[in-house]
Amino acid sequence: MGRTLTYPKKVSNTANRYKHRATYDLGPIHSIINDSQVLHVSFNPGPDDPFPAILPMIGQMGSFEFPSASIDEPLECYLHGYVSSRIMNLARSCSDGEGLPICVATSKIDGLILSLTPNSHSYNYRSAILHGYATLVTDEEEKLWAMKLITNSVLADRWDHSRVPPDRAEMQSTVILKVKIVDGSGKIRDGGVSDERKDSGNEQVTSSVWTGVVPVWETFGTPIPSGDSKVAEVPEYINSYIASKNSQNKALAEGAVKVQLPAEEQH
Amino acid sequence: MGRTLTYPKKVSNTANRYKHRATYDLGPIHSIINDSQVLHVSFNPGPDDPFPAILPMIGQMGSFEFPSASIDEPLECYLHGYVSSRIMNLARSCSDGEGLPICVATSKIDGLILSLTPNSHSYNYRSAILHGYATLVTDEEEKLWAMKLITNSVLADRWDHSRVPPDRAEMQSTVILKVKIVDGSGKIRDGGVSDERKDSGNEQVTSSVWTGVVPVWETFGTPIPSGDSKVAEVPEYINSYIASKNSQNKALAEGAVKVQLPAEEQH
Repeated sequence: MGRTLTYPKKVSNTANRYKHRATYDLGPIHSIINDSQVLHVSFNPGPDDPFPAILPMIGQMGSFEFPSASIDEPLECYLHGYVSSRIMNLARSCSDGEGLPICVATSKIDGLILSLTPNSHSYNYRSAILHGYATLVTDEEEKLWAMKLITNSVLADRWDHSRVPPDRAEMQSTVILKVKIVDGSGKIRDGGVSDERKDSGNEQVTSSVWTGVVPVWETFGTPIPSGDSKVAEVPEYINSYIASKNSQNKALAEGAVKVQLPAEEQH
Repeated sequence: MGRTLTYPKKVSNTANRYKHRATYDLGPIHSIINDSQVLHVSFNPGPDDPFPAILPMIGQMGSFEFPSASIDEPLECYLHGYVSSRIMNLARSCSDGEGLPICVATSKIDGLILSLTPNSHSYNYRSAILHGYATLVTDEEEKLWAMKLITNSVLADRWDHSRVPPDRAEMQSTVILKVKIVDGSGKIRDGGVSDERKDSGNEQVTSSVWTGVVPVWETFGTPIPSGDSKVAEVPEYINSYIASKNSQNKALAEGAVKVQLPAEEQH
């Protein structure tokens, strides 16, 4: 009823710069994660390695316990991976305790902000991070549910239009990580160019430098059939997914430019 | 003369899965980094925080010492940030020693691989990671050189077409991290659908499931002027950058599909 759930603000997830762009609300953070084709997942490989590792992974937010939970309610992050990968082995070894501490991150560029001076250049973008503890999903029903969730995030309804269910070997080679979220944050920059008075009031500068926004979005092209399949036509659920994604993505990038900048905005 | 420089293979950067897709060559790894609009940078905030942090940052590979170095030669990674951000403070405190151990990662999706069964689904993609030690650039000339390098990576030639050089306040508020690279690796998946015999030989499956590739690429839209600038027309260097990027991106995503899969390829 009009309530907004937010993640707790800690040192690790609190924005110190451009605070007005930051959000701690579950809804927008989860949406940014779910709209991502790929997530960057960071973990520490062990005490002998000084470097954190980053893996590109596919994942989605969801609730197996409450499948009808909406995007702004508490959800877990499910990540798809291969059985013998390093992160899976580490998570397996942590499964007695809380799990493996990881960070999940994603960023999407929506436009190039071309201002009068390089210092005021920026992007329109949406980014999100989550911190949480990752454990392996052992329940077969939950694993299958998460595999379907993740496959359908790549292309809506693809699961039921492919050869399912996975056989025993496929189930064994796939591992799903479940991340219990501890905190998270998002950052969204939209609007147009924002320059400082020293430049926007300088006729010599404004008469020589073009300023504006170049919208940027992801385009899905015409499907290229493999030749192996006997299905002659590209099915409607694929064509309509591509068409709706393409128009949504373009509208989002172009629409972001028109958002009014807050007074406190610098660039 | 035909030599190929490669990064050392260590546990931290060696691929264990789909080894034929992995590369340790400097050229392709540096190219993937430089083609990225945003990089994900991971570091450990401190002994009290169990979670690695990830920041989205803008960066480029380059050599200040040998500016004419080509992409397949040893280069440093320069990252752009704000003076008081957490990563900058940590790197500052590590500047007496080797620097702050970080991981730089990026991934770009080039296509959806829609196979017969969810287990064989994949993406065409290019991803890269680098491990290295980050320190703050203190030399003013090197800092200015890196700022120009990074600005021009957002839009070719933009630096000289904007109000430069940065003034004293702008130089002070900007911090450039220089990452001395220790190791790195890349992973590239291209080609079409690859299914297992158990499915591709099953008439019931091949007659009901459409398979193929949906190419995916980044599109730059029509520039939207800010109204602040007195320059009436979008300059040629912007229009030609957009046109060439759009045709390159589309050609790359569609061309990736036509690459022949190696015999060892599963999916």
